[in-house]
Amino acid sequence: MLKDFEMKKPENKEALSGQIKELCSTLLGQQQQLVGAGLPVMVLIEGWAAAGKGSLIKELISEIDPRFYNVVSPQVLPESETRYPFLYPYFQALPVNGKVTFLDSGWMENAVQKYLRHEITKDEYRRRIRQVNEFERQLRDGGYLVVKIFLHISKKEQFSRLQDLAEAPSTEWRVTKDDVWQHKEYKRFTEEYDDFMKRTQGVFPWTILDGSRRKTAVRDALKLLVDTIEKGVHAGRFCGDPFEEEFSMKKIPHLSEVDLSPSIDEEEYRQELKRLQTRLTELHNILYRRKIPVILCYEGWDAAGKGGNIRRVAYPLDPRGFDVHPIASPLPPERARHYLWRFWTRLPRTGHIAIFDRTWYGRVMVERLEGFCSEKDWQRAYNEINEFERMLTDWGAVVLKFWIHIDQDTQLARFTERQNTPEKQWKITDEDWRNREKWAQYEVAVDEMLQRTCTKNAPWHIIESNDKKYARIKTLKIIVKALEKACENHFRQITS
Amino acid sequence: MLKDFEMKKPENKEALSGQIKELCSTLLGQQQQLVGAGLPVMVLIEGWAAAGKGSLIKELISEIDPRFYNVVSPQVLPESETRYPFLYPYFQALPVNGKVTFLDSGWMENAVQKYLRHEITKDEYRRRIRQVNEFERQLRDGGYLVVKIFLHISKKEQFSRLQDLAEAPSTEWRVTKDDVWQHKEYKRFTEEYDDFMKRTQGVFPWTILDGSRRKTAVRDALKLLVDTIEKGVHAGRFCGDPFEEEFSMKKIPHLSEVDLSPSIDEEEYRQELKRLQTRLTELHNILYRRKIPVILCYEGWDAAGKGGNIRRVAYPLDPRGFDVHPIASPLPPERARHYLWRFWTRLPRTGHIAIFDRTWYGRVMVERLEGFCSEKDWQRAYNEINEFERMLTDWGAVVLKFWIHIDQDTQLARFTERQNTPEKQWKITDEDWRNREKWAQYEVAVDEMLQRTCTKNAPWHIIESNDKKYARIKTLKIIVKALEKACENHFRQITS
Repeated sequence: MLKDFEMKKPENKEALSGQIKELCSTLLGQQQQLVGAGLPVMVLIEGWAAAGKGSLIKELISEIDPRFYNVVSPQVLPESETRYPFLYPYFQALPVNGKVTFLDSGWMENAVQKYLRHEITKDEYRRRIRQVNEFERQLRDGGYLVVKIFLHISKKEQFSRLQDLAEAPSTEWRVTKDDVWQHKEYKRFTEEYDDFMKRTQGVFPWTILDGSRRKTAVRDALKLLVDTIEKGVHAGRFCGDPFEEEFSMKKIPHLSEVDLSPSIDEEEYRQELKRLQTRLTELHNILYRRKIPVILCYEGWDAAGKGGNIRRVAYPLDPRGFDVHPIASPLPPERARHYLWRFWTRLPRTGHIAIFDRTWYGRVMVERLEGFCSEKDWQRAYNEINEFERMLTDWGAVVLKFWIHIDQDTQLARFTERQNTPEKQWKITDEDWRNREKWAQYEVAVDEMLQRTCTKNAPWHIIESNDKKYARIKTLKIIVKALEKACENHFRQITS
Repeated sequence: MLKDFEMKKPENKEALSGQIKELCSTLLGQQQQLVGAGLPVMVLIEGWAAAGKGSLIKELISEIDPRFYNVVSPQVLPESETRYPFLYPYFQALPVNGKVTFLDSGWMENAVQKYLRHEITKDEYRRRIRQVNEFERQLRDGGYLVVKIFLHISKKEQFSRLQDLAEAPSTEWRVTKDDVWQHKEYKRFTEEYDDFMKRTQGVFPWTILDGSRRKTAVRDALKLLVDTIEKGVHAGRFCGDPFEEEFSMKKIPHLSEVDLSPSIDEEEYRQELKRLQTRLTELHNILYRRKIPVILCYEGWDAAGKGGNIRRVAYPLDPRGFDVHPIASPLPPERARHYLWRFWTRLPRTGHIAIFDRTWYGRVMVERLEGFCSEKDWQRAYNEINEFERMLTDWGAVVLKFWIHIDQDTQLARFTERQNTPEKQWKITDEDWRNREKWAQYEVAVDEMLQRTCTKNAPWHIIESNDKKYARIKTLKIIVKALEKACENHFRQITS
């Protein structure tokens, strides 16, 4: 901990230089091993203002091939932090397998600073600590190596460094108000940094380095990195065990219990469609102004009518405020990262709506059944997804998930019709027929998914879609009701 | 032109609805043809505030599968416009082959608005018009279809629409100061819009639609889109002819004329390296504050020493302010777009430095020699690249291009050494040996590239690298000198 950290004694300079040189050359040799083992590495450098985080990173990368790393600094993501969930910039910064990302301050600085400034409540602060632990565990279980360093300097040392910077005309601009404020509040920062580190030691440990001995710090950071990689490469890519946390669940039937007969007549459909779409336009307006983000997730059988359903929902929305994300099989840069990465990077900004046409649930359906991931991977995913969605709803998002449901006969009829209609033929592929043969296996997977991820905060809705029009109206009703409730809650919150 | 545009007469509503329905279904059928032909489509919707651009887009996309389009609105790119070149957001928004991007106002609004607000000078405005014409031609020549629509309403109609919006509490916020200002300046806007359209008619023509007749506008826009796609699909992917514009060129020798003997002794190397790196750190500081962007381009023979050279340049830079972009063969989403797209999207923000380890010149070297693009494509590229780099230097960027040069014997010696050193073996591949066999062909291509793209604004520098240390010092000297000049020019500009 910072409070009782013992600053380092000076060491022989030449010996230090020699050790650094040796470690650099080891690191250089490790690059290929990392690639070979497919291991991604995240190096988080936190620390005091003027502790030398930038220079430390500079030394660490000086000998590495630029193809093997990238440096991410918070300045590059100024907007992200306010219009996206807390962890968004860090998920976005995840390296691909075989590469290293250096993070020039990150989730710790972000949380502690905002808390001490009273920009977030104590409750929110605690929530962020929990999210950090979930995030780090997800990274570890997904095979990531994470090195967490805190670069420490005393209050006295910070004073003299800030003073030096402020006195030279060419560096004066580097001393920000935040830096001065941190210096004034050095003691409180010490306490909160310590508290944060204590509470986030569980998955990847923190290492405090003495920033007032630059060379020593470089040597120690290099050693830490080299040791971590060596251990990681030796142990092979880690894959975490499944486990189950407590989430507040909502009851949902099994697919076989669902009555698929409901239908709607043409006249009622038209009236309801118009009424609900008009209402949705109004609600989108309100959500936009109040900056409430909305995430709509569509899953369902092939030919269940997802596309048409999505179009009816999207039609009344202002195109400037929503995106539809069709999710196909992952591209190489997506496959080479944590499986949730491509969804994190597609999250809507506050006030916007994101509609996912297929989702992260691919992990527990197609990836499970086709063996695209290991059993541990998909078993673990239920919990990871529940955590992910809780991060979204904690952020203030409305998350609704729809299973567009039909029976096998209806699917066959629709497949046949597509086959026989020239302009619809592109919609039907051999894969669809192959998937159809696995209906029973899919049903098991879908049922398990619905049961294990129907949380109160991000519930599933089964949409009977043998009659597509009935399905559209039902979906729209659920969306309208949920958005009305969200607006009401939001208003209650700001007035309480 | 807007000045003499005749507003439309009302049409029979049912007939209109019928036509819209029919056009929608044609458009639906065209989706697959677009994919088949690999044609990307950009639909630019410009127009007056409150003319109904958003609703028009809504109608156009209402029947299209979300997998085939995306909507880009300027609100999503607030930062881009100030910290990146003028065309950056539009290049970024380019669709992949087979897809449609709807742009909710774009390069016209951006340029005209800024000009009328005196945020850019008349000179800069004219430059932007030239850039737009170059941009549109590059798109056309690269196989893009572009539809440009201006949605027109009269001053009276705008007044009543803005009033309606302002009076309802739920839509009041939609009327911005900019809208009110535009309304007041309706006449000047008319003139400038007309002027802009007249000057940018050359490549893709403008179509003015009457925004006060919503359904008519939807029908006409759909018709335009459907006709454009039909013609495009019928004609097949367009590939523009090469041509040559005038650029101010700088003299550069042929590779065979270069004396590769220069070298440097160890002691001088050390001193110079230290001096130049220290100076570079200072300059980076200044550039960062003055927001001058820098783009360093590295090309050269395999094993010429690019990597080590880049490391010596990057070392003194603050890692928060630069990125190294290693350029390998393009990924699928990159290959499916204009070849410059992946470089546009990697441009540095103002004040930042981007180092490209291989560049857009791949087009006229490896892509030319390996037949990855047509002869017309690479022949055209010299000019396109000169235009691209002029856009960068017009924006205020320092652009320096280095050809790291060695002779064949030196390459052979280095290849052999890599082959024989275990930790360097990954650096040498069969492809390197194959490329080596094509040395003579490459030399022809490189010479042509150097001669045709060594512009005064973005010059090439041949770096003799048989002695790597000499090469590093020479590169650093060129960079330091260019950056010093840029700082001086910048200071002269702001004080004049």
